[in-house]
Amino acid sequence: MKIVTLVYPGVTPLDLVGPLQVWSSWPGAHVEIAARTLDPLATDTVMQIVPTHTYTTAAADPDILFVPGGTDGTLAAIADDGLLAFVRDRGGRAGWVTSVCTGALVLGAAGLLRGYESTTHWLVLDELKRFGARPVKARWVIDRNRAAGGGVSAGIDFGLALMARIVGEDHARMTQLAIEYAPDPPFRSGTPDEARPETREAVRSAFRGFVSALDQMTAVLADDK
Amino acid sequence: MKIVTLVYPGVTPLDLVGPLQVWSSWPGAHVEIAARTLDPLATDTVMQIVPTHTYTTAAADPDILFVPGGTDGTLAAIADDGLLAFVRDRGGRAGWVTSVCTGALVLGAAGLLRGYESTTHWLVLDELKRFGARPVKARWVIDRNRAAGGGVSAGIDFGLALMARIVGEDHARMTQLAIEYAPDPPFRSGTPDEARPETREAVRSAFRGFVSALDQMTAVLADDK
Repeated sequence: MKIVTLVYPGVTPLDLVGPLQVWSSWPGAHVEIAARTLDPLATDTVMQIVPTHTYTTAAADPDILFVPGGTDGTLAAIADDGLLAFVRDRGGRAGWVTSVCTGALVLGAAGLLRGYESTTHWLVLDELKRFGARPVKARWVIDRNRAAGGGVSAGIDFGLALMARIVGEDHARMTQLAIEYAPDPPFRSGTPDEARPETREAVRSAFRGFVSALDQMTAVLADDK
Repeated sequence: MKIVTLVYPGVTPLDLVGPLQVWSSWPGAHVEIAARTLDPLATDTVMQIVPTHTYTTAAADPDILFVPGGTDGTLAAIADDGLLAFVRDRGGRAGWVTSVCTGALVLGAAGLLRGYESTTHWLVLDELKRFGARPVKARWVIDRNRAAGGGVSAGIDFGLALMARIVGEDHARMTQLAIEYAPDPPFRSGTPDEARPETREAVRSAFRGFVSALDQMTAVLADDK
């Protein structure tokens, strides 16, 4: 079982580490963290990520291609022809084509989501339509060999769901217990529907520039097709 | 707000990245990732972690000291006098002394939990008694200026709870919505009480060697006091 994870500058570490921690107990899994070069990459936190493989050395025919998201990092990623060529190449041959958060938009920009259901961060869910995908408001979505998690923390649920589908429910249940995944959020504030209106507006306002820039970019990319 | 995070070989990335992702939206926070040297460290996944500071350059008087956990990594950490001296020094002057998962045992081995309530991974909860702490079966525990999250994935809940306590509830609610933390685990299998008996026994069996080694080590450390 070869799992190739794309990383790029500005990636959101939790998008990646949720599934990565789940999959580290996947029997026989070989996980690669692939980027343009092996240089440590900046993220949207103080933590850097060290790639283990490059676009050249990453497995040519992965069982799973996985793409995490980010904010400004995603904007740069969907404008990066070399990155999209790598995603299109490995995604075209992968058994599963998967993402968390705005990683779905990278898959979309690479042309890999046309006609598929998918999901992404709630702030930008409708952007998936630009790439011919059908947005679904859900914690995770599996449609044929495409699987997507919602925003950031959804990667844990997504990772367990995909493991259950491929390895089996028994193993996913063991992994869930090993990582003690019995979440108990301090507030009901994880979706725009359950959050207070003032919380929702504050977050929308904080990300307005990102959402606007993304919308302009996806309009151009969609028009190019 | 200076936050110093310890890392060490074999650390569990999700223990660290849950709170780190939450705290990356902490207004005015300056987060340091501290280890013996700046060399990238192996973890219990394929991902390495790159320290930003050393025991020498890390803030002398952090507002928060945070220690993540691991399995074999924790065994080595609680036997490492240099590491424990660093934890004891920064912890002695920190505003808050905090941990996720078996990071609590590192704090305990450094003598920082005597007389405090704390929590850790369910497999090793009673080990806290060896260091004079009172184990509490909870997702997170705050006792005066000590705060602890349970196993691995509890770091997200812990990170939000600590942010709510220090920065305020409004900001923690915004952060929860930004990281879309509305968890929906695929199974009820996150605690030994809710998991199926066969799942519980399989996980106990998989970690039997670790738990046994830890118990022997903490017996010696406790006797030394």
